Amino acid sequence: MSKLSHVDESGAANMVDVGDKPVTQREARAAGTIRMAPETLDMILAGEHPKGDVLATARIAGIMAAKKTHELIPLCHSLNLSSVKVWLTPRADRDGIDIESRCRLSANTGVEMEALTAVSVAALTLYDMCKAVDRGMVIDNTRLLEKQGGRSGHWQSSEAQ
Amino acid sequence: MSKLSHVDESGAANMVDVGDKPVTQREARAAGTIRMAPETLDMILAGEHPKGDVLATARIAGIMAAKKTHELIPLCHSLNLSSVKVWLTPRADRDGIDIESRCRLSANTGVEMEALTAVSVAALTLYDMCKAVDRGMVIDNTRLLEKQGGRSGHWQSSEAQ
Amino acid sequence: MSKLSHVDESGAANMVDVGDKPVTQREARAAGTIRMAPETLDMILAGEHPKGDVLATARIAGIMAAKKTHELIPLCHSLNLSSVKVWLTPRADRDGIDIESRCRLSANTGVEMEALTAVSVAALTLYDMCKAVDRGMVIDNTRLLEKQGGRSGHWQSSEAQ
Amino acid sequence: MSKLSHVDESGAANMVDVGDKPVTQREARAAGTIRMAPETLDMILAGEHPKGDVLATARIAGIMAAKKTHELIPLCHSLNLSSVKVWLTPRADRDGIDIESRCRLSANTGVEMEALTAVSVAALTLYDMCKAVDRGMVIDNTRLLEKQGGRSGHWQSSEAQ
Amino acid sequence: MSKLSHVDESGAANMVDVGDKPVTQREARAAGTIRMAPETLDMILAGEHPKGDVLATARIAGIMAAKKTHELIPLCHSLNLSSVKVWLTPRADRDGIDIESRCRLSANTGVEMEALTAVSVAALTLYDMCKAVDRGMVIDNTRLLEKQGGRSGHWQSSEAQ
Amino acid sequence: MSKLSHVDESGAANMVDVGDKPVTQREARAAGTIRMAPETLDMILAGEHPKGDVLATARIAGIMAAKKTHELIPLCHSLNLSSVKVWLTPRADRDGIDIESRCRLSANTGVEMEALTAVSVAALTLYDMCKAVDRGMVIDNTRLLEKQGGRSGHWQSSEAQ
Repeated sequence: MSKLSHVDESGAANMVDVGDKPVTQREARAAGTIRMAPETLDMILAGEHPKGDVLATARIAGIMAAKKTHELIPLCHSLNLSSVKVWLTPRADRDGIDIESRCRLSANTGVEMEALTAVSVAALTLYDMCKAVDRGMVIDNTRLLEKQGGRSGHWQSSEAQ
Repeated sequence: MSKLSHVDESGAANMVDVGDKPVTQREARAAGTIRMAPETLDMILAGEHPKGDVLATARIAGIMAAKKTHELIPLCHSLNLSSVKVWLTPRADRDGIDIESRCRLSANTGVEMEALTAVSVAALTLYDMCKAVDRGMVIDNTRLLEKQGGRSGHWQSSEAQ
Repeated sequence: MSKLSHVDESGAANMVDVGDKPVTQREARAAGTIRMAPETLDMILAGEHPKGDVLATARIAGIMAAKKTHELIPLCHSLNLSSVKVWLTPRADRDGIDIESRCRLSANTGVEMEALTAVSVAALTLYDMCKAVDRGMVIDNTRLLEKQGGRSGHWQSSEAQ
Repeated sequence: MSKLSHVDESGAANMVDVGDKPVTQREARAAGTIRMAPETLDMILAGEHPKGDVLATARIAGIMAAKKTHELIPLCHSLNLSSVKVWLTPRADRDGIDIESRCRLSANTGVEMEALTAVSVAALTLYDMCKAVDRGMVIDNTRLLEKQGGRSGHWQSSEAQ
Repeated sequence: MSKLSHVDESGAANMVDVGDKPVTQREARAAGTIRMAPETLDMILAGEHPKGDVLATARIAGIMAAKKTHELIPLCHSLNLSSVKVWLTPRADRDGIDIESRCRLSANTGVEMEALTAVSVAALTLYDMCKAVDRGMVIDNTRLLEKQGGRSGHWQSSEAQ
Repeated sequence: MSKLSHVDESGAANMVDVGDKPVTQREARAAGTIRMAPETLDMILAGEHPKGDVLATARIAGIMAAKKTHELIPLCHSLNLSSVKVWLTPRADRDGIDIESRCRLSANTGVEMEALTAVSVAALTLYDMCKAVDRGMVIDNTRLLEKQGGRSGHWQSSEAQ
């Protein structure tokens, strides 16, 4: 029967030992959305600097956070990502900004948490830069889209299939 | 007219100068939810150690992340929180765990980002510890509930009013 | 004749170059004890939540500290541990809590410092959580129990033999 | 009746709220010892560079660690120390090096953990630099010597009285 | 006679005790230049995104580094900056990019190191992003321009006077 | 035609994907100089502790900073250096201290930024420790001397050839 991998028989939380896992090419994609008032989105997109520093700052924050994942999530292994990408797509039709990330690594542990952390911190950074005009923003639907590599193989969310 | 506080007239992102803001008692409360399969929630709640190390680990991760907010959010000020609290409430009726945080500080800048970061990282930690059995979990509705103190005064989300 | 590996011929401290060392499976075990008043130990063990959050918090702190070892010890190499385990055993007979850790890694440098750091920080965390009732606690006997792997091979402390 | 300050009525670990504590001048002194083979101590003290980079590196590591205490100890408040001092005293008569620290701060929370962390990390750093010649070193007797300031006032260990 | 403030009478490096210094408004401005091949500068400035993500990334890196100064410089005090600003000015006439920073704080210790660290890390970030086309770039003339506040009062570099 | 590797076709800054790069032995050497008043240099060199803690502190700061490079430079990959060396050479003839570093690693990404970061932070640390007597010090000529390994092969600055 399946069980929580990070909790041992006595109920104590510990890191999973990945020493015996195969070193393979790993990839994970995650996504999320920050919803905001239409006026807030307009403000980000307005002016002479379309998609300027606001989006650049959030993208960089997401990339840097992926590298810090093991400092934030207590039982995550530290690892040396070979690639992190973060994309931010303003969606005027949905009053929000879609955030997507993709992390890659060749190692014996997956990179799902790194991808999810990148999305979460990019969203928090957007919140920070816009909060003076809109405190009611909501970060929604942060989820894994797809992962590849490792013993558990390929996994896709239902929406990604 | 209102504008984005972290972007100057040339479009460059910079920290807001809080040197002239009043030092007052600040407080912020934030919340979010991680939704999961009913079996996943059962697994967290089952056994001899109800609400054991899984929830404790997530709560501690949230508290520690609040203290790291200024390292994650590029334009956040570093500050010395006087209090961080994180509560995790399993909700069998909604197939998920509700996360709530409250941060306090006496200073010239608010603590909304610290409260939101605590919630996000607690949720990511729950995802990490349960992902081996459920990759389809979703972190939803991360939002500010309330803030007090500072020039902008008291703010409540519509649900908190 | 043997000499200090981290100090060069001019007396300057520098990192050892591990580039030529063999990549092998490494393991290290360390231990220590925090001694306290009997009443303090009772308080940790008492109530409805035996071995509850106090021990969980210390265990997580130890695990996270192992991952931070290279940030704390100036000449330690950063590395990607494949496993960290921390065990805490209250010892009513000795008025204290025994702490033991085990770190694993496949690499060209050992993990003794990671194991010792995990023990030290778990002990400090216990001190922190109990200091309001007992400032006289003492952290004692922090030591390496055993190491395996690498050029110097297997080493055991006399007590572990 | 006295109780553990970091654990609430439900057994959950949380930061203590120091917002209502008085801002006073705080000071804490801690100490510990690393015991080693006489040959190891000779090696540190030998040569043209008496008390050279080995002791300097450990002292600096201890100072830097004091500033990182809140990142290591989950429920410690971050704070801005006004002073950290670390002294290392080789004791040929006891086959070891005594480590002492003193931290100061004007704030609403004490600095005991900072002083203890400085001692622990200075000791670990000495272990690291000498471990190639002596794996049997032991870090002993890490303890608080004295604290001043705050609601609980002046406290001295029995040896310091 | 004047002496090095961070080295005590025995030659040991230690943090300066700032507990007795006055809390005043502090400000420091620093500057530096990264010199590069004209083609490299053209490449940064070219295309549809003038002064786009390359400069934004360096500016954010400089701001974030200012907040990390006390983790980098062993004897620097940690502090809570009220403002950090970084400006990057491409100088086609000098084949380089000028970097200037300004840090502010109300406290009992100055912010010179924070301003200098912001400049250095912004310059290193520019190097990183352009190194694939130009490894011969040089970071030059990193210096303090001006400081205000504190016991030593107002100081200006000769060029700033 | 050559282009900036860290900026994609849309102008967005992202990490380069190094997953397809060859794992080879990498090395980079960098250098820089801090210029100061002759009296300041005399003060560092004077007394019973020639080349004492001031230089040791700067050297250790440089080594530790090399390990932190990926936290400072947003698009740098985290990696596990096998060696960092920092040399500080007081130059009475040039009123300054020369700083040189060398980093090594077996991986699929280079270590130029680590070498440059070590030099920059060592120089900033010297500034910090001497600033009470000399605020006019200047950090000059921070540059790469040489790199080896990887697809782009061997590169030397003109001075190193």
